[in-house]
Amino acid sequence: MADFSGTISGTAQPIAGIRLGTVAAGVRKPGRDDLVLVELAPGTRCAALFTRNAFCAAPVTVARESLAACDSLPRYLLINTGNANAGTGARGLADARACSEAVAAACDVHASTVLPFSTGVIGEHLPVSVITRAIPAARAALSAEGWAAAARGIMTTDTRPKLFSASVTCEGQVFHVTGMAKGAGMLRPDMATMLAYIATDAAVSQPLLQQILQNATDASFHRISVDGDTSTNDACVLMATGAAGNPELDSLDSPQAQALAEAVRDVCVSLAQGLVRDGEGASKFVSITVREGAYSSECLDVAFTIAHSPLVKTALFASDPNWGRLLAAIGRAGLPALDVNAVSLRLNGVLIAENGCRAASYTEEQGAAAMAAADIAIDIALARGDAEETVWTSDFSYDYVRINAEYRT
Amino acid sequence: MADFSGTISGTAQPIAGIRLGTVAAGVRKPGRDDLVLVELAPGTRCAALFTRNAFCAAPVTVARESLAACDSLPRYLLINTGNANAGTGARGLADARACSEAVAAACDVHASTVLPFSTGVIGEHLPVSVITRAIPAARAALSAEGWAAAARGIMTTDTRPKLFSASVTCEGQVFHVTGMAKGAGMLRPDMATMLAYIATDAAVSQPLLQQILQNATDASFHRISVDGDTSTNDACVLMATGAAGNPELDSLDSPQAQALAEAVRDVCVSLAQGLVRDGEGASKFVSITVREGAYSSECLDVAFTIAHSPLVKTALFASDPNWGRLLAAIGRAGLPALDVNAVSLRLNGVLIAENGCRAASYTEEQGAAAMAAADIAIDIALARGDAEETVWTSDFSYDYVRINAEYRT
Repeated sequence: MADFSGTISGTAQPIAGIRLGTVAAGVRKPGRDDLVLVELAPGTRCAALFTRNAFCAAPVTVARESLAACDSLPRYLLINTGNANAGTGARGLADARACSEAVAAACDVHASTVLPFSTGVIGEHLPVSVITRAIPAARAALSAEGWAAAARGIMTTDTRPKLFSASVTCEGQVFHVTGMAKGAGMLRPDMATMLAYIATDAAVSQPLLQQILQNATDASFHRISVDGDTSTNDACVLMATGAAGNPELDSLDSPQAQALAEAVRDVCVSLAQGLVRDGEGASKFVSITVREGAYSSECLDVAFTIAHSPLVKTALFASDPNWGRLLAAIGRAGLPALDVNAVSLRLNGVLIAENGCRAASYTEEQGAAAMAAADIAIDIALARGDAEETVWTSDFSYDYVRINAEYRT
Repeated sequence: MADFSGTISGTAQPIAGIRLGTVAAGVRKPGRDDLVLVELAPGTRCAALFTRNAFCAAPVTVARESLAACDSLPRYLLINTGNANAGTGARGLADARACSEAVAAACDVHASTVLPFSTGVIGEHLPVSVITRAIPAARAALSAEGWAAAARGIMTTDTRPKLFSASVTCEGQVFHVTGMAKGAGMLRPDMATMLAYIATDAAVSQPLLQQILQNATDASFHRISVDGDTSTNDACVLMATGAAGNPELDSLDSPQAQALAEAVRDVCVSLAQGLVRDGEGASKFVSITVREGAYSSECLDVAFTIAHSPLVKTALFASDPNWGRLLAAIGRAGLPALDVNAVSLRLNGVLIAENGCRAASYTEEQGAAAMAAADIAIDIALARGDAEETVWTSDFSYDYVRINAEYRT
């Protein structure tokens, strides 16, 4: 147990060294905030994770290249909604670079220090002049207090912003962490662009920053999405301004680094759960815990097989304790030599199934009462070992179909 | 090219040696045909494929055991709808055996020659006495002309029966093949119980019969469902009565065996496509062909990634030529070193995308016109080799959610 105390808050806390400016550029629809400029103080270190989709979007390619070229010391992030600049070929790359160059010119920095991010419709060319024309206004709007507006500005089909802060004190040192994310189509991992931006005032070496981001992502965004199974534009960025003035952290062995890592993870978990709660058409928030597995990987296989089953998800929408569909999903998760008679299943604490069939104590009334809640905890014990994993998902509703059938119209 | 001629027909042709009887036993709802008894003439050989789900249903376990015990020479199949007898533990096994024993007693055969099959709700105990009470009536109804009634009798959420026949003539020998199937939830492979029963009058050795069934299934039911990703009750049975009087076929090398294998495959493909067309809430029939792959397996990976993408399926429902979602699905199918700029995409013959972006010749009007059809052909060329595979799927509609949310109510 690390020797520190921390809190998490839904109220955004400014991070010294970070300013954000949000404007309505009119990328796709007029009068809607759709362009966010993030300014990083000189010397701010940056770690990032990008989609592994072979059809990655132009801004992903450019941001990845620029991050390498600027030695992970970017000065600006430019994020637009309304257009993903994906499936746009060579012109898409030129368009993304043109946006970075426009920021560089307006702010008097090198273009390689400007990272572009886009989210929205795939396959249409980016309206570059619409974006570049709005950059001066975005710059004029830069403010350390700009997090709330920015969290709204990166939304697409999201119905509410996701924005969390944490503070942590360790050995007399205080660190602040604030993060925002967007992405409302988390019912399956290929559903949407997920963008997440997390900043801290800690001073952290770049390798440690990347490790902290990777660990936090594994415990959060990768628990709502199969690893590698990402959209064309997914990106997750962690910025460390160093404004806290601590001696630079360079190893997870130090208590302060552990405290910071936990605060970053807590913010990421809150953001990830926020994405699920705001999932397209979601009416339920579902935690799936798989215990007593031989390995973590098999716990995740079972959990994600359940999380991705349309049959389970429609039953959740109907508040139907259809444990037969849950057992069928466990059965096809590919676990070698699974003893189905050893598996037990609980819904919100009610023992539903054991010994391969319905629990003797179980009544439909109990199941119906458990499923009536908006938050559902599915707990599965495999009786094969000590591994345990939890993933989060939502249900599958009429609104999900409506939102995704009508998205372009 | 085998030297034979064959035809396929939606009109069921009786198979000498097979009789079917269908009655309304009242397993779940009164007045609905829900019990089918199939009688096989003595000496009829039988091949079968069952679900690989670890939570396989009690009748699957019993049918598998009995098939081995009777040396693949069963005399009766008993199929009920309304209750899957899955997730029912030790009592489920006893219930399935009790049904087989009741048929055995009524028909004066050994219980191991009676194979039980169940489909319907998972996790409720089978109403054995309701079923056994109806067996005399089912036996009295046995008729060589009973295929049409049986194909309706095995339906659950299906809206129409699937029943096809083929005849083939080779070297003066005529073979007949008739098959029926049920399963309306083919939007994902875990959606439903698929049951299929195919019979022929050919005389075939058991190993060859199994091989013919495996090949036909690979080309049909496994093209609408990921291999191994099956429900608790899936079963596919091929029966060969030998009534045609031909010398027993024992190798695919013979022209007659090849002719028979093609006829069985044609019937299975027609049944599989029928399942997709009757998919729960389906409004589109979608063929996905992936060409120019390095291997068949990577063609299937791409095709099934598309076929399982809710984003693609909702766009299909909306008749939206959303090729960006198709490119994103191709990009996450896991193909090593995929050159996205070499991939081309056609919808009903219209070139939509090439060089990683929208085709220069493409207009939204062309795309909208292509997508307005009820049958959609998605054609993807990977430019990596000569392999080609086709799978069939349907779209994702409001009715899909309604059917699966309301199934138990």
